[in-house]
Amino acid sequence: MELKQKDLLGIEDLTREEIELILDQADSFKEISMREVKKVPALRGKTIIFFFVEPSTRTRTSFEIAAKRLSADTLSITAAASSLTKGETLLDTAKNLQAMAPDAIIIRHAYSGAPHFLARMLPSSIINAGDGTHEHPTQGLLDAFTIREKKKRLQGLRIAIIGDVLHSRVVRSNIHLLTKCGADVIICGPAPYLPPYFKGMGVKVTHNIHEALEGADVVMMLRIQMERQNSIAFPSMREYFRFFGLDREKLKRAKPDCIIMHPGPMNRGVEIDSEVADGPYSVILDQVTNGVAVRMAVLYLLIGGTHEEASA
Amino acid sequence: MELKQKDLLGIEDLTREEIELILDQADSFKEISMREVKKVPALRGKTIIFFFVEPSTRTRTSFEIAAKRLSADTLSITAAASSLTKGETLLDTAKNLQAMAPDAIIIRHAYSGAPHFLARMLPSSIINAGDGTHEHPTQGLLDAFTIREKKKRLQGLRIAIIGDVLHSRVVRSNIHLLTKCGADVIICGPAPYLPPYFKGMGVKVTHNIHEALEGADVVMMLRIQMERQNSIAFPSMREYFRFFGLDREKLKRAKPDCIIMHPGPMNRGVEIDSEVADGPYSVILDQVTNGVAVRMAVLYLLIGGTHEEASA
Amino acid sequence: MELKQKDLLGIEDLTREEIELILDQADSFKEISMREVKKVPALRGKTIIFFFVEPSTRTRTSFEIAAKRLSADTLSITAAASSLTKGETLLDTAKNLQAMAPDAIIIRHAYSGAPHFLARMLPSSIINAGDGTHEHPTQGLLDAFTIREKKKRLQGLRIAIIGDVLHSRVVRSNIHLLTKCGADVIICGPAPYLPPYFKGMGVKVTHNIHEALEGADVVMMLRIQMERQNSIAFPSMREYFRFFGLDREKLKRAKPDCIIMHPGPMNRGVEIDSEVADGPYSVILDQVTNGVAVRMAVLYLLIGGTHEEASA
Repeated sequence: MELKQKDLLGIEDLTREEIELILDQADSFKEISMREVKKVPALRGKTIIFFFVEPSTRTRTSFEIAAKRLSADTLSITAAASSLTKGETLLDTAKNLQAMAPDAIIIRHAYSGAPHFLARMLPSSIINAGDGTHEHPTQGLLDAFTIREKKKRLQGLRIAIIGDVLHSRVVRSNIHLLTKCGADVIICGPAPYLPPYFKGMGVKVTHNIHEALEGADVVMMLRIQMERQNSIAFPSMREYFRFFGLDREKLKRAKPDCIIMHPGPMNRGVEIDSEVADGPYSVILDQVTNGVAVRMAVLYLLIGGTHEEASA
Repeated sequence: MELKQKDLLGIEDLTREEIELILDQADSFKEISMREVKKVPALRGKTIIFFFVEPSTRTRTSFEIAAKRLSADTLSITAAASSLTKGETLLDTAKNLQAMAPDAIIIRHAYSGAPHFLARMLPSSIINAGDGTHEHPTQGLLDAFTIREKKKRLQGLRIAIIGDVLHSRVVRSNIHLLTKCGADVIICGPAPYLPPYFKGMGVKVTHNIHEALEGADVVMMLRIQMERQNSIAFPSMREYFRFFGLDREKLKRAKPDCIIMHPGPMNRGVEIDSEVADGPYSVILDQVTNGVAVRMAVLYLLIGGTHEEASA
Repeated sequence: MELKQKDLLGIEDLTREEIELILDQADSFKEISMREVKKVPALRGKTIIFFFVEPSTRTRTSFEIAAKRLSADTLSITAAASSLTKGETLLDTAKNLQAMAPDAIIIRHAYSGAPHFLARMLPSSIINAGDGTHEHPTQGLLDAFTIREKKKRLQGLRIAIIGDVLHSRVVRSNIHLLTKCGADVIICGPAPYLPPYFKGMGVKVTHNIHEALEGADVVMMLRIQMERQNSIAFPSMREYFRFFGLDREKLKRAKPDCIIMHPGPMNRGVEIDSEVADGPYSVILDQVTNGVAVRMAVLYLLIGGTHEEASA
């Protein structure tokens, strides 16, 4: 089986089988990062352009390591350096990149839908590394990979997603993915951060963190995007922590072997207590490690060749 | 035949034979970017430093892809990051780079002549990626390559160059190249953008776009460098477009198979209409594609080894 | 013999034998940068992250060239781009980097001790590329390498270190290294730049440059960190040069074959006269060249494999 798509724009477009294909491929790639020589020639001679119009360390770094461990050539273009500052349109910039014959363009953009627009216009594989508050599919995939690794399944798990749902690009990808794979998802956050349209996405919704945590197998905390707060403001960070921050006390309602996730970067003492973040059930750093394997899988399945090359 | 020079500083220094040598080499490299594995080992183990004191996406990206497809190691130094901000002179910075034994330094600098200065002082190959409003030789070469590809010759072609001639670094390189290769060049722009000393360069000069376009085989539009406009200002962008912007109506005076070029980034609706920019006779994206091949050729001819290695 | 440490944090932690091991390894690597193909596969498949929270061209460039000539994969994270700007702690950022399984993290940080903190927390090799005004061990090593190369020994040499001792991160590394290797070190600077605690480091201290230069085999000038000057200010740069700047006249007191060093970037006419900086006894650019070899040695000894691979 193969990925039929040219692009990875969102989890919404993927079938359960395609999701599992990516996760299985990531499984076989994870071991490469533990070798002495962390490199295979699977993408030798491929050109991957990073086109990040919004800053991101963690996602860019993860993709870049993934690309290099597959021997691809990488190239980075940032908004500040790009011709966008000279008044060129996004499409013209992208067509110019395309004319240099890249195999994939990995884009992060403040506007929801920017990657989809490029995908329609360009023959290169477009990979969405986060578009506005819309989707962040590789984050969803690495979260699923991590859950599957720890719990051996997704089907039937009770998964609580808690925090600033409104500004999160991760949450949409996760809801699509987890519901497709048969998990029971409950999302929770303060009213101004939890718009009513989420109810239509096949998940339960609550403003009560205790209800969300009840019997949970997995707790995903979302970060308060402090740099995005405009008009909607919580009275104080301490207040937020009291009602929606995860600590050991609140966590007692979850299953005893419940795992704790966070997409990072964490605001310790705001959405999550350090005791929980660094505790035995935290898989937050596993998520980061798995991110490299999942991104290797996505790159390989979209622009790689035959399976023999990958294992060479 | 070989390039005798250590450096590529400007088209002015090249003979017609040397220009043809570079274009022929580019011809043989163009195919590499269409392969599954877009990489040859021609420059393996060579170190190329990008020293860009002025920002540039398009030129830097093109050179970087060219270098990587030849397997060179690349390294980027920007003005902001460089010791220049600590008060070091350009020469000291360059001597320091030299001491790390690079094979080539690709420089873009706001001062005309900066690359020539470094070329005299350093044993590395210096490649001018644009110096002030002086020269931008690889742009000239990629333009010539594109014309030759489409028209099979340069000799005897009627070529109109239209727009902000004053602030363009491309136009000087193009005039040198096209006149050396036997083309008839006419340059055109509003009076404040078209200084009288261009008349001494072996080209015709006009302020009338209709005259410039009459019977043209090739039309090269220059971009209005909006970010460089200081005192000299056109009444409005709409006004500019009316008199000097290329549209379908004005283009009727050119030959029916006339090709349209633009060095990018384009200001649509200012110097060029979208209908023309995206139309069937536009070769604007071919220019970008050919830029990679031409820069591969320049790098290879300046710092590469024997011809056998290139085809490996 | 091998380096026992996981990290290179400072010269203070190294024995004389370990220093000599690094310098000997650098000796055998120096020749690689003079080859046609400047590359060996010693670190193929290793991932090296540059984590520079303070800007640096020279050190970063030198490390990056060193890493690439050993075939390692490199990746750069700067403060501006990093999650540090989103309020994440240094430790969380570092743990996240660690989770992507790098072999080494090369860090420059404004806080003295930041690399030591990371070294305790992370299994990766941490290399200190300058921490506050504390240490800059690879600069100390390249200085020692250069002296040994020119003078054939360190033992018994008279070495004067002159200038802004207070703000220098180089001087501490050099004092540790040179005294461990048996050199006689005298440090000299104006009173506000020469804190009394240096007297306890096994060196002579003077405010008189003539005394410092008397019979010197090696003169190391330090740069006036103009960008770090806050309250302590010298009346004027001309005044500084008169009393503490190195020129041909003052240099007469040193040995006739005395070599002149400077870590760069130089402030010509402030701490050093051009006639001396560019004169026959200046080894300032040799320092830069040797920096690449020394950093190759450090990377190789910390994260490389067996000796056979290195010579492949």
